[in-house]
Amino acid sequence: MTALPVTREEVSAAHDRIRPYVRRTPVLPLDAGSLIEGDAEIILKLELLQHTGSFKARGAFSKLLASTVPEAGVIAASGGNFGRAVAYAAHTLGHPAEIFVPETSPAAKVDGIRHLGALVRVVPGYYAEAAAAMERRAAESGALLMHPFDQPEVVAGQGTVGIELTEQIPGMDTVLVAIGGGGLIAGVASWLEGSGVKVVGVEPRAAASMTAALAAGEPVVTEVGGIAADSLGAAQVGEIALETVRRDVAGVVLVPDAAIRDAQIWLWRNCSLVAEPGGAAATAALLCGDYVPDAGERVAVLVCGANCDPGDVMA
Amino acid sequence: MTALPVTREEVSAAHDRIRPYVRRTPVLPLDAGSLIEGDAEIILKLELLQHTGSFKARGAFSKLLASTVPEAGVIAASGGNFGRAVAYAAHTLGHPAEIFVPETSPAAKVDGIRHLGALVRVVPGYYAEAAAAMERRAAESGALLMHPFDQPEVVAGQGTVGIELTEQIPGMDTVLVAIGGGGLIAGVASWLEGSGVKVVGVEPRAAASMTAALAAGEPVVTEVGGIAADSLGAAQVGEIALETVRRDVAGVVLVPDAAIRDAQIWLWRNCSLVAEPGGAAATAALLCGDYVPDAGERVAVLVCGANCDPGDVMA
Repeated sequence: MTALPVTREEVSAAHDRIRPYVRRTPVLPLDAGSLIEGDAEIILKLELLQHTGSFKARGAFSKLLASTVPEAGVIAASGGNFGRAVAYAAHTLGHPAEIFVPETSPAAKVDGIRHLGALVRVVPGYYAEAAAAMERRAAESGALLMHPFDQPEVVAGQGTVGIELTEQIPGMDTVLVAIGGGGLIAGVASWLEGSGVKVVGVEPRAAASMTAALAAGEPVVTEVGGIAADSLGAAQVGEIALETVRRDVAGVVLVPDAAIRDAQIWLWRNCSLVAEPGGAAATAALLCGDYVPDAGERVAVLVCGANCDPGDVMA
Repeated sequence: MTALPVTREEVSAAHDRIRPYVRRTPVLPLDAGSLIEGDAEIILKLELLQHTGSFKARGAFSKLLASTVPEAGVIAASGGNFGRAVAYAAHTLGHPAEIFVPETSPAAKVDGIRHLGALVRVVPGYYAEAAAAMERRAAESGALLMHPFDQPEVVAGQGTVGIELTEQIPGMDTVLVAIGGGGLIAGVASWLEGSGVKVVGVEPRAAASMTAALAAGEPVVTEVGGIAADSLGAAQVGEIALETVRRDVAGVVLVPDAAIRDAQIWLWRNCSLVAEPGGAAATAALLCGDYVPDAGERVAVLVCGANCDPGDVMA
């Protein structure tokens, strides 16, 4: 059974649901010739300024507001951006949240989740172990299970970034989007379906689970690592994401970790922005020449996450 | 001889001059009740995303573009934001720049100036010694002397932030602006003169040279220190600034260093923004209750600088 991409109507409905709770993040046009040579117009979408420091808040609110939340509240497995977003959305809407985090998660991220009032369960091992423990607990507690990228309401919520892009950047030709599990690119591509805007995915070479899925024709478990693994290191992309990428995405480029580091440094030095590695990956695709725009091409770049130790950016 | 405030026409002319070279920085409305209790509307002006990481680029371009620049180029004394802004503006417009920095300036800031191609002269002592050496050299070289805050074209350039505020925030009641030498508040207040918008200054308790000048009736040399001294530590405010503040500013509030630190942490945790201490001072005035808005008051807060080691924000 193949999952279906979400529809434009689902993205639009998510936008109506979440609007009171999320930030319409600003855009920042760069001077021509500053990030890359030539006269392409590069416009950064500052989604890293979103509540909880990443786009994940959109999907979390979208799913929660579309659901009848049981008394047991919500449950999720994530030691990173999705966990923080679910904890924030649940806290804002007055629901209890139980978040399973692998013991390998950075302490700062786990503390951030705990500070939002969520019950944090630290599980020995990696993400897979945390997810398995979460599923056992969900069956027992009856809490609403929140998946970081493979639920239609979550994908539709992430797609609301696309609505803002079309409003904020008239004449946009292209949008560059980082891929982890694929929720963000799937949502954005679904919104832009048929619009003529080219959607290009960006994966770290060291965490290329979408590239692997495209080759295999289905989501496959992939070895992932590298400096962006904390946010883009989903070992297996979502069914919805793969279907959407196959249908709507022009291509997926691969960036080396060194380019991601360069992009983090560039964003700090030139825009005073602290992006986490995953948040800087789309910028890296331009900086290292993996994506070369045409003359005059109007390119939106999603800078989609900030959650790191800010000192790491210039370390 | 008393200096005169700049006119709205001078601010408007500066805006026309500098527009191709500076960023129209975005604004970020905060959720009611998030920074402070109550239903005041707080809107951050993200001027820290400006070229060179502070508003100083506006004044530097304004002065340069209004002047006939001699072959010797431009000259300034500053180990901080103004030095970087002058170096950037000169580099962009193709003029040589010579920047005198006190040996006490942070190495990172001095390197930033040098990377922009400026000739950097490190002077033993503090700012006063660097400024004296710069003036001797200017008399000899004939270079265009750029003052960080007490030249009309510089003040008019900083005032262009005010033009953007009126465009971006309809119905704005109040704007909170940090004061160092007073160039930014003077420019913004001159633009808003007669508009009914209340302009409120914010000084660190540890660097209160405007408060001292208001008490004395003239700019006086004041002992300055504290965590924001690097950007707000002008020992003596400008003549133009004092005259403008006397005429147009509703009041100046004083914030303790601890509130500035809290504001830096708040901005990072809640907005993923890295503000330097001086850049966070206006936010601190709200956070610590030194400025308490009325119910429904629409308050713009200038977050005006980012230039610090990003790791310091959460240290």
